[in-house]
Amino acid sequence: MSPSRKAVLGQNQYGKAETRVVKVTRDGSVHHIKDLNVSVSLSGDMDEVHYSGSNANVLPTDTTKNTVFAFAREHGIDSAEQFGIHLARHFVTGQEAIGTARIRIEEYAWDRIGASGSDSRTAGADEINHSFVRNGREIRTAQITFDGENWEILTGLKDLTVLNSTNSEFWGYVKDRYTTLPEAYDRILATDVSACWRHNWTSDDERSPDWDSSYQQARRHILEAFAETYSLSLQQTLFQMGSRVVENLPEIDEIRFSLPNNHHFLVDLEPFGLTNENADGGVYFAADRPYGLIEATVLREGAQQRIPVDMTNL
Amino acid sequence: MSPSRKAVLGQNQYGKAETRVVKVTRDGSVHHIKDLNVSVSLSGDMDEVHYSGSNANVLPTDTTKNTVFAFAREHGIDSAEQFGIHLARHFVTGQEAIGTARIRIEEYAWDRIGASGSDSRTAGADEINHSFVRNGREIRTAQITFDGENWEILTGLKDLTVLNSTNSEFWGYVKDRYTTLPEAYDRILATDVSACWRHNWTSDDERSPDWDSSYQQARRHILEAFAETYSLSLQQTLFQMGSRVVENLPEIDEIRFSLPNNHHFLVDLEPFGLTNENADGGVYFAADRPYGLIEATVLREGAQQRIPVDMTNL
Amino acid sequence: MSPSRKAVLGQNQYGKAETRVVKVTRDGSVHHIKDLNVSVSLSGDMDEVHYSGSNANVLPTDTTKNTVFAFAREHGIDSAEQFGIHLARHFVTGQEAIGTARIRIEEYAWDRIGASGSDSRTAGADEINHSFVRNGREIRTAQITFDGENWEILTGLKDLTVLNSTNSEFWGYVKDRYTTLPEAYDRILATDVSACWRHNWTSDDERSPDWDSSYQQARRHILEAFAETYSLSLQQTLFQMGSRVVENLPEIDEIRFSLPNNHHFLVDLEPFGLTNENADGGVYFAADRPYGLIEATVLREGAQQRIPVDMTNL
Amino acid sequence: MSPSRKAVLGQNQYGKAETRVVKVTRDGSVHHIKDLNVSVSLSGDMDEVHYSGSNANVLPTDTTKNTVFAFAREHGIDSAEQFGIHLARHFVTGQEAIGTARIRIEEYAWDRIGASGSDSRTAGADEINHSFVRNGREIRTAQITFDGENWEILTGLKDLTVLNSTNSEFWGYVKDRYTTLPEAYDRILATDVSACWRHNWTSDDERSPDWDSSYQQARRHILEAFAETYSLSLQQTLFQMGSRVVENLPEIDEIRFSLPNNHHFLVDLEPFGLTNENADGGVYFAADRPYGLIEATVLREGAQQRIPVDMTNL
Repeated sequence: MSPSRKAVLGQNQYGKAETRVVKVTRDGSVHHIKDLNVSVSLSGDMDEVHYSGSNANVLPTDTTKNTVFAFAREHGIDSAEQFGIHLARHFVTGQEAIGTARIRIEEYAWDRIGASGSDSRTAGADEINHSFVRNGREIRTAQITFDGENWEILTGLKDLTVLNSTNSEFWGYVKDRYTTLPEAYDRILATDVSACWRHNWTSDDERSPDWDSSYQQARRHILEAFAETYSLSLQQTLFQMGSRVVENLPEIDEIRFSLPNNHHFLVDLEPFGLTNENADGGVYFAADRPYGLIEATVLREGAQQRIPVDMTNL
Repeated sequence: MSPSRKAVLGQNQYGKAETRVVKVTRDGSVHHIKDLNVSVSLSGDMDEVHYSGSNANVLPTDTTKNTVFAFAREHGIDSAEQFGIHLARHFVTGQEAIGTARIRIEEYAWDRIGASGSDSRTAGADEINHSFVRNGREIRTAQITFDGENWEILTGLKDLTVLNSTNSEFWGYVKDRYTTLPEAYDRILATDVSACWRHNWTSDDERSPDWDSSYQQARRHILEAFAETYSLSLQQTLFQMGSRVVENLPEIDEIRFSLPNNHHFLVDLEPFGLTNENADGGVYFAADRPYGLIEATVLREGAQQRIPVDMTNL
Repeated sequence: MSPSRKAVLGQNQYGKAETRVVKVTRDGSVHHIKDLNVSVSLSGDMDEVHYSGSNANVLPTDTTKNTVFAFAREHGIDSAEQFGIHLARHFVTGQEAIGTARIRIEEYAWDRIGASGSDSRTAGADEINHSFVRNGREIRTAQITFDGENWEILTGLKDLTVLNSTNSEFWGYVKDRYTTLPEAYDRILATDVSACWRHNWTSDDERSPDWDSSYQQARRHILEAFAETYSLSLQQTLFQMGSRVVENLPEIDEIRFSLPNNHHFLVDLEPFGLTNENADGGVYFAADRPYGLIEATVLREGAQQRIPVDMTNL
Repeated sequence: MSPSRKAVLGQNQYGKAETRVVKVTRDGSVHHIKDLNVSVSLSGDMDEVHYSGSNANVLPTDTTKNTVFAFAREHGIDSAEQFGIHLARHFVTGQEAIGTARIRIEEYAWDRIGASGSDSRTAGADEINHSFVRNGREIRTAQITFDGENWEILTGLKDLTVLNSTNSEFWGYVKDRYTTLPEAYDRILATDVSACWRHNWTSDDERSPDWDSSYQQARRHILEAFAETYSLSLQQTLFQMGSRVVENLPEIDEIRFSLPNNHHFLVDLEPFGLTNENADGGVYFAADRPYGLIEATVLREGAQQRIPVDMTNL
């Protein structure tokens, strides 16, 4: 029998991407700010809109955008995760045709101008409580998925750029016909951390984690592991970062990293009669491309691996 | 029993990303150019490099970069797919520790300056055969995966920006408390096509498709379907694009799209005493964010769905 | 006498940047499209808004945005230059406080899907006249400045990426203590052309050029000069491109270029027992950074140099 | 007499752009890091390389890149300004054909992981002195120009994103036929500060400022002025930022700003039966384009205005 020539619909989803919502809360003269980029993706009984163009089951993406703004007003934004939970529950329980809602959120952090210990201590610091400077360090991410029964909450960060100027080696590797790389016993190790971790909270019957506190702890463990690991490979550093998170935070079962190896090459200054060695404080060329790319999942023994392989590239 | 506190390694892969290789071929005075961005990702028996930092099984990413350049010389670059096949086979058969190789390639197209029917007819066109102008329309992509037995070849494109200035409607949708969108009976439909399709060639025993010809045909069907479909929803247009590819090209079993709805809003000019209607040739505000995002897989009846949901976002 | 501690206002300007306006014109069933990004910048008697915050002389930037949309309806968009002339005249003659208006425009080109000789010949080409594919090659730019008396019209393009695979040498240069570069007698020459040229039309009393035709000719001369010049330096190629424009187009008095030298380095394959030479069709590494950057103005003998040094970097 | 058809060379410059140099200094176990992106631009007696392609006066851009790396070793990197002064002096005094050197530098800041008061207090903070996290807040810039006699030192910053959630109004503006904007008595004011200021140090005979300390003070005054100004227009805020710098720092004669007005629009939630007011803590849509753009120079009374109008857009 010859194969079918007929085309059919497979997995599909739709929604409004990148709704930029900023919520200010006023606590007397002290203001607070939440700054999110929210993408809604819905799926369910959507065959007809693909086959015939009938929109009878389609809640417009414009409506999902309106809902994001309205919910910021009705529910406030406690955390990205909590806000996403409100939204996902609304779409799945509110529309019969929608079986699953996935909310992706990026959160941008702001520091207070003038706050003690912050970016800048200003003259009138005590009295200025409505002025903020964007903290550009990294972006916090969250993905909330609800299928009407269970929750999957992925939290993460990206663009956290870190560098160790020593305590990194790379040697003892396979050498084939195309290998020219010299072994290194003291090198710079630098990367832009993209990470995504899965909470084991899945049901409204259980008490959910404190999302903000959990995030801060996960971030701290990642930074500490990077700083404290004497590294023989970026893979080893990755595993240290992941295992610290999983072993210290019982609410997290799995974490996936995508770590570019931001190469810093020691420049050859010998033609100019100059030495240039790591041990002495070197001069490096910070390269753009190509770059090594190390990706892996670290998970709690016995836990199921559920974070998609490409998740951290998004 | 309380859950384990021990962390273990899950899925992992590594390699050199974004090696930019340009190959010139000289056919007498007529030159040809291939311009690729190649990312290698290897996986296999890599536990130790994560656990202890031992690199005994690790072929350095620097070596995979060298291999890309050397293979461009040894094998030439016939097509992105063929080049990726050479590379993937080499890594899997050459290193015992490596079980699977995945090669991702972006290809950038160049037009000949002065060639007939091309971008620019120059005075000395007949004699100038080494001058090129980058064709910026879209990027061709390929992903080649080999596990030692079977091949999976995904071909695709991204950033193919298209627009219909009529023959698009949107009405008859669900209205809930948060719906304010007016129905539209004549609107602009515009998107940046990201698509990725899977060939059913999986074995060296079968004859492989003509990759370049197959790409050109798939691209043509996508453009034609976009232009010729009278659209009641972007989902319907998507399905038409996908079904034309699957139904006309027997070598392709599955295709996935990610289509942003590039909103063009008719500007309200009434405050200025001006009409502004689609039927009359309208003035539109081309919005950036937020945007609708429509994603779906179209596949041959009976075929297995294998392209990852997030593939077209990469 | 000690220097003043008092601060005063210097040059200033304001307006709405990046209004994205798309205008469709319907000629029966044949549609036409113009796609612009318009930035308005106004200056004049604006001291008070800086010193005291009084907006009495300030036309809101929101109004300048509205004006862009309204003018697209009232006047249509014949060319970027003509559209900018309408806008600049309106602001300067309509508001007493505004002495000078500067309009910057980027134009994005679209090809017709299915048109003969175009990107894609589709089945129903003859009947489909409302379908377009974005031509991604380069961006056309225009800057229109009016001070109430005189006009200055700068036209340009950016991101026109070109490459010669031979007919380029580089030798005979200065060598100092830090020079290691070997001389090259056959190399790839590649650049992203940014150019900006000044028309000598300055007064409503004169007949203005045909802006579209002039643009097409200038672009063609630039491409031809690039292709036909046997190059001993990128500077030489730049001068050839500029002189062809100035010498062939009497309406243009001056042109400025910013040309990155997109380095394509011949990869050293000797460690792998492979040759790699230009003459034989080489394998190149296309580098990102650093890059040479060549900038110069070419002008008609006797003409005044007026294009700012940084213009082509914008 | 008819105008000349002959083209001649105007202003020109060349060099290597974007050399990414990282310098580590080891002070026992305490490491320090400087991370710069350096662009060299040289001009002088360069007619022949444009007219005939003779490179007899051309120091290769590759050599200027080598010089950046070598100087980082020979002189260290005290500050971006001091490093640029070393480079500019070298090129102008070392090559007879070169009359002027202009060095542009971007500097990226790193925080210490674990340092007190910093981003993250880690367990082993006291002992870890070689670990850094990129401080993403803003980029520091410097432009050093030397013509053999005089220096011009421009220092600046870009991408410093700030927001006031109140104390901003906008009313009393001009209203014409195209004005629809309602007046605002309490709004969000947000911008990405790009600023560039000129030191009045011009001669080796004078003692140069402490570049780092001066930068920190200028930055602090800008932030404070933003936070403390009750704003009736972004222009007023701009002038306050500039005048504080000029009036408090005698070494700075002139400062230029480019300030996008990052619009935060109060969302209309009335269709959903919800109020949404600034006074009550509002929900805002953070828009991308279009945006207001306010640009101005503030200078010391009597000082000459020398910063180019487009400087802060680079």
